[in-house]
Amino acid sequence: MSVTGGPSRLRVGFVMLHTSPLDVPGTKDAGGMNVVVLAQAEALARAGHAIRIFTRRADPAAAARVELTPGLEVVHIDAGPARLLAKAEHEPVMAEFGAQLAAELAREPADVLHAEHWFSGIAALPVARRTGTPLVQSFHSIAVPEGSALPGERPESPGRLAGERRLAREADALIAVSEAERGTIVADLGGAPERVCVVPLGVDTELFRPCHTRECAERDEWFARGGAAEVIAVGRLHPLKGFDLALDALAAIPAARRPALRIVGAPPPDGDDYARGLHEQAARLGLLGSVAFEGALPRPELAARIRRATLMVVPSHTETFGLVALEAAASGVPVVARAAGGLREAVRDGETGVLVRGDDPREWAAVIAALLDDPERMAAMSRAARAHALGRSWGASAESLLAAYRGLLAARAGAGPVVSDGAAGARATRCG
Amino acid sequence: MSVTGGPSRLRVGFVMLHTSPLDVPGTKDAGGMNVVVLAQAEALARAGHAIRIFTRRADPAAAARVELTPGLEVVHIDAGPARLLAKAEHEPVMAEFGAQLAAELAREPADVLHAEHWFSGIAALPVARRTGTPLVQSFHSIAVPEGSALPGERPESPGRLAGERRLAREADALIAVSEAERGTIVADLGGAPERVCVVPLGVDTELFRPCHTRECAERDEWFARGGAAEVIAVGRLHPLKGFDLALDALAAIPAARRPALRIVGAPPPDGDDYARGLHEQAARLGLLGSVAFEGALPRPELAARIRRATLMVVPSHTETFGLVALEAAASGVPVVARAAGGLREAVRDGETGVLVRGDDPREWAAVIAALLDDPERMAAMSRAARAHALGRSWGASAESLLAAYRGLLAARAGAGPVVSDGAAGARATRCG
Repeated sequence: MSVTGGPSRLRVGFVMLHTSPLDVPGTKDAGGMNVVVLAQAEALARAGHAIRIFTRRADPAAAARVELTPGLEVVHIDAGPARLLAKAEHEPVMAEFGAQLAAELAREPADVLHAEHWFSGIAALPVARRTGTPLVQSFHSIAVPEGSALPGERPESPGRLAGERRLAREADALIAVSEAERGTIVADLGGAPERVCVVPLGVDTELFRPCHTRECAERDEWFARGGAAEVIAVGRLHPLKGFDLALDALAAIPAARRPALRIVGAPPPDGDDYARGLHEQAARLGLLGSVAFEGALPRPELAARIRRATLMVVPSHTETFGLVALEAAASGVPVVARAAGGLREAVRDGETGVLVRGDDPREWAAVIAALLDDPERMAAMSRAARAHALGRSWGASAESLLAAYRGLLAARAGAGPVVSDGAAGARATRCG
Repeated sequence: MSVTGGPSRLRVGFVMLHTSPLDVPGTKDAGGMNVVVLAQAEALARAGHAIRIFTRRADPAAAARVELTPGLEVVHIDAGPARLLAKAEHEPVMAEFGAQLAAELAREPADVLHAEHWFSGIAALPVARRTGTPLVQSFHSIAVPEGSALPGERPESPGRLAGERRLAREADALIAVSEAERGTIVADLGGAPERVCVVPLGVDTELFRPCHTRECAERDEWFARGGAAEVIAVGRLHPLKGFDLALDALAAIPAARRPALRIVGAPPPDGDDYARGLHEQAARLGLLGSVAFEGALPRPELAARIRRATLMVVPSHTETFGLVALEAAASGVPVVARAAGGLREAVRDGETGVLVRGDDPREWAAVIAALLDDPERMAAMSRAARAHALGRSWGASAESLLAAYRGLLAARAGAGPVVSDGAAGARATRCG
């Protein structure tokens, strides 16, 4: 990267209104976003930058400021009641949060504000404008346009799509985690292509590692003695994840060659209808002896499960990025995934796994069974997958994010590479 | 033990008609019995004795004789079709198996025959009589008398109870794994008390070990950060195991203090009605986010799950021995178990766990929640449990079995301690 906008030590303010980086992913409202923000923030702090994460106080006992690592601080902002709020309860507190954020920035300015999720963006936008701080927006997930929701999906808050469209127009830079998300931001939200920067997520290749311990040796011996292979599927029990297709595919594999299927994930807080349906489907298909429903797991346990699996399956209808597929790769586990969204980038088709088009369980079954029957191909994929993941560290992800910040600051200063887009010229940017 | 009947190197023939010691427990018909017989046979072979395990050939490709370790050989006996048979299909092949066993013993005699399960006993009894070899019988499980079965339990084969009663009268020694089983053999089967020897099972304290790896450190940190504790329950999904009570108890713990419940075990081959019911019950109680249904696991994986759990719960209506409770103890995991059958011996109440009387889910919930709230008591129980298990090796179990063999041989020779029981005087024995 040759872009050098801004001071050498950047002061970055992450804004994460509705969930705390101190919460454990899988508890409260903490999930993938918490993992991503914390990992990027830590990597930026390690690179010498000064990072604050602004989050709403949901716990009356939490300290006002908590230093997580040198250069990385969590700042709790009082806005609304100091308790956990349901997602929909956040919209009324956005304005109050913005006002308090402005006060924090008045005391201690930031070179860049980076808003996570649209709540944070809408809260931060006026503050950014008033203080002249460039605003970078990450969506994490983007509202499905009306009428295109899957059966069982909750209708979106009406404010969300409008909020996301506004941010796509007004934020100074938009971060996409994949070319697929870039396409969505441009096509569905009207974001200007030259302001969308693709910053792929990273993976913790220490936590997600291939299986070389005594326990795995014991397991491999069991497999060698005729134990069934194990296919793993990871994610919340939500219709978007397509786990019903995985069950149908499993049933389509003849019993003698059938692997076990392990589903790791809990129902989302807003309902367990889909989870109930999966349990019923497994019973109906006679698969209760072949399917494990694991519930949510702490990340170290999740990593342990993935590295013990033979194969991962990702039948999600769409994934913005497909982090679990990258976590499987880091664990040396080949992935069979749907050719959709960011999964097309997360899996190298034929190299680190196989991409499948469509919803035919027999086709999924055939792909899975063929891979399990070909240990040499699996071993080659396992090696390629680990190598692929090793190039996708969080440090690399943070470096790419930094390039986006620098590009923005350079453009602002008129000193760096600017891509003029006419009307929005002063806010134009370019990514790395 | 001062008993020294028989030669210093005993030739022992284990008879295990219907399941092969070469099968992996959890596959085919292999289960707890396979673990027990193999572990005792290995320990006896290590102690210098010559052990053969006679089993029916279910695989046409299997070699006639397979040496497992020095001094331990599996002998495949042709009787009936060389394929896996359903349990009920074994009764017609018992006689043929007995005839082939006699031929094997004619070529190479045994000092003691030890029959596992009633199929084997009935097949071996005439052979033992004809060759003058003492017959030792282990039941592994004993038929529930008519009318006392639980709802959902299959009615017993009519031959079984009669077969077990005959063996209790006619075998030269009867092995019970607990005082509880001893009581059943005497009271329900009419076994003479002085011919019943209690030989407790052992536990592999290498495989079942406390959790001290990097993964467990990662998990402990997660617990310390507020993650939920995990309660584990292990066994086939069969009404006898009482897992429905565990679900009700979980639901009776307030959500904020509720641990996760992990159920490890598959439905038995003869039906998944109970498993379906458990999935439905979990959905009805709103517990799909708190319960993991794991299916069956290879033993190394089972051991890994147990050592990671905070607590084990054993709500079985009865257990002859309660091996999983001992496996938990070896893993340093306290156990909450029903005060029934062998569980009263496997768990030292108040020391390595807590015994609960009755079926009130609120009482089970109170005991579980109180333990989870008392880390100091849990730590003390964990230490006591591991220490308890270390005294219960398979070597110790085999030594106790050997004492039973020796007592029998000494009594036969009229050279050792004999307990006269009148009519059966010549076959009387005493245990250790």
